[in-house]
Amino acid sequence: MFTCVGYSSTSPEAPLKPVSFERRDCGPTDVQIDILYCGVCHSDLHQARNEWQNTMYPCVPGHEIVGKISKVGSAVTKFKVGDLAGVGCLVDSCRDCPSCAEGLENYCEKGQTFTYNSEDKVSGGITFGGYSAAVVVDEAFTLRIPDNLDLAAVAPLLCAGITTYSPLKHWKVGPGQKVGIVGLGGLGHMAVKLAHAMGAHTVLFTTSPDKVADAKALGADEVVLSKNPDEMAAHANSFDFILDAVAAPHDINAYLNLLKRDATLCQVGAPDKPLATNVFSLIFKRRNFAGSLIGGIAETQEMLDFCGQHGITADIEMIRMDAIEDAFARMVKSDVKYRFVIDMKTLPTAA
Amino acid sequence: MFTCVGYSSTSPEAPLKPVSFERRDCGPTDVQIDILYCGVCHSDLHQARNEWQNTMYPCVPGHEIVGKISKVGSAVTKFKVGDLAGVGCLVDSCRDCPSCAEGLENYCEKGQTFTYNSEDKVSGGITFGGYSAAVVVDEAFTLRIPDNLDLAAVAPLLCAGITTYSPLKHWKVGPGQKVGIVGLGGLGHMAVKLAHAMGAHTVLFTTSPDKVADAKALGADEVVLSKNPDEMAAHANSFDFILDAVAAPHDINAYLNLLKRDATLCQVGAPDKPLATNVFSLIFKRRNFAGSLIGGIAETQEMLDFCGQHGITADIEMIRMDAIEDAFARMVKSDVKYRFVIDMKTLPTAA
Repeated sequence: MFTCVGYSSTSPEAPLKPVSFERRDCGPTDVQIDILYCGVCHSDLHQARNEWQNTMYPCVPGHEIVGKISKVGSAVTKFKVGDLAGVGCLVDSCRDCPSCAEGLENYCEKGQTFTYNSEDKVSGGITFGGYSAAVVVDEAFTLRIPDNLDLAAVAPLLCAGITTYSPLKHWKVGPGQKVGIVGLGGLGHMAVKLAHAMGAHTVLFTTSPDKVADAKALGADEVVLSKNPDEMAAHANSFDFILDAVAAPHDINAYLNLLKRDATLCQVGAPDKPLATNVFSLIFKRRNFAGSLIGGIAETQEMLDFCGQHGITADIEMIRMDAIEDAFARMVKSDVKYRFVIDMKTLPTAA
Repeated sequence: MFTCVGYSSTSPEAPLKPVSFERRDCGPTDVQIDILYCGVCHSDLHQARNEWQNTMYPCVPGHEIVGKISKVGSAVTKFKVGDLAGVGCLVDSCRDCPSCAEGLENYCEKGQTFTYNSEDKVSGGITFGGYSAAVVVDEAFTLRIPDNLDLAAVAPLLCAGITTYSPLKHWKVGPGQKVGIVGLGGLGHMAVKLAHAMGAHTVLFTTSPDKVADAKALGADEVVLSKNPDEMAAHANSFDFILDAVAAPHDINAYLNLLKRDATLCQVGAPDKPLATNVFSLIFKRRNFAGSLIGGIAETQEMLDFCGQHGITADIEMIRMDAIEDAFARMVKSDVKYRFVIDMKTLPTAA
């Protein structure tokens, strides 16, 4: 074991503060990563504040991790010391259920090990995330980072990137299709970039007139103000796929009605209250209302490679570690373009 | 034109009563069918009582029609006088939109002509359904009836049969799969028979302990009492497909949670209020919540042929035409095993 410094919450009300905690030493198949950057996902805030009622304290959030390998276990084959590496939402899974066998560790049927706030099957205790100096992860759950991208702006790809890439691929988005993205936040802005790069005619839905220019600059071919019923009606029955990245309660039927026959609306934002679903809208066009959770490890690598080929990263605002509470407060107000990333050089060397 | 006798409602409150109305004479591609039997669908009641706020009076319901051809137009090729014939929910469509071109006239993008309460593009006015002595329909929308089945019990196949067959086929139900059917009414009892005949392990969900024996006799391999949380929990994450035939508001999440990863719950019952959908249930297993509407004409013929091969018909209670109001009242209480069918010999010869 070794002592690691990080930022942790100790109760739903307590602000995050520096903490020392123990990490396991590199096992034979592990790599140790000195963390350079960590993205700030809305899940970090939910978990730190116990908004999902399952937080185990102390809680070190962070699952959009980019860093440099500082140690490798004796059996490691994919990485060597000095390599760049990434870690996303998952650090382990059962590795033998049908979903794991298909490379869908994100849907592991015996229970994934999430990067933080999960039971750690290797070393016992709880997993701690990327708001910290270093992390030790099995190489099977460690990603290679393309060498042509801005490293800080790569970090959000590990969650926001794969969470939107995976459903776009699963539902076969590509040229000749009209694809809708609902909401221009951390997930939505990645979805616009990715759908555009996949060749789809990409339409961004937003409630904010002041996001129109941004959305077009990010790659949207059209922007629809969702509060304008005429603009919405003009798109009825016309979408091949819609990815909904809005985590707040909203009228899902307004978007279901825009789908073609047999098309799918996939929710990646996770409202904490049920959404009232108009069954007639599903029935009359055989439409599908679906959800999707992150992505598998192989697909995450595919996404990173795709982003390398297409020069895609997140639009970020870099922050110091001690500004995390301000960042949380701004994130709650959607006041970020479009992802905060913590510069880990600003982490104190001792807690 | 010729005068036809039927049963019609004239207002939401008025009971159905005998009426004389005009039908068009056979055009070149039309057949005239003397109606022998007509099934009683819950839609008939909804429409007669204006429960969907779109009824055009007088309203002659009925879209589960079986009869004998009495006239054929000069260009008719599929039928001759004396043949048995069936008519379901559709009597026409635009015939050239993408959905029609794919044989999915049920999803016609310019507007299907339903068998009753639709604008009649051929003769003007409103279409009148099968609670009548005869009907004139283009042969393209007329079905052949297998000659080995009880004719009265075939009638409900034209709506309840195809409405359940089509999604079972679309989502590729077959041997080796575990398929759930929710609700044992007119649609549900057909779904149990069809899913069983397609080779799936068929599980019927019901709130009624007194339907368990019936469900097994109809072909269910298992019956789950949906009010028993332990029985429900035992089936978590295990279904390849669930067909939900319940038209009343109900907890859809209890069934979504029973689906495997990537599996679909398809609603064919149409609750008039939105269903509260737990998005986490969709996200964590990439599940799909879908709907389906009747089926296309070619698929309806395929379903009838399938039923002929497998000896499948509806379980029916035959009624006289003048008992329709009693039948409606019992249908509202789900007091029918499992479909009422009107014996059209009991229709008066004049109104």
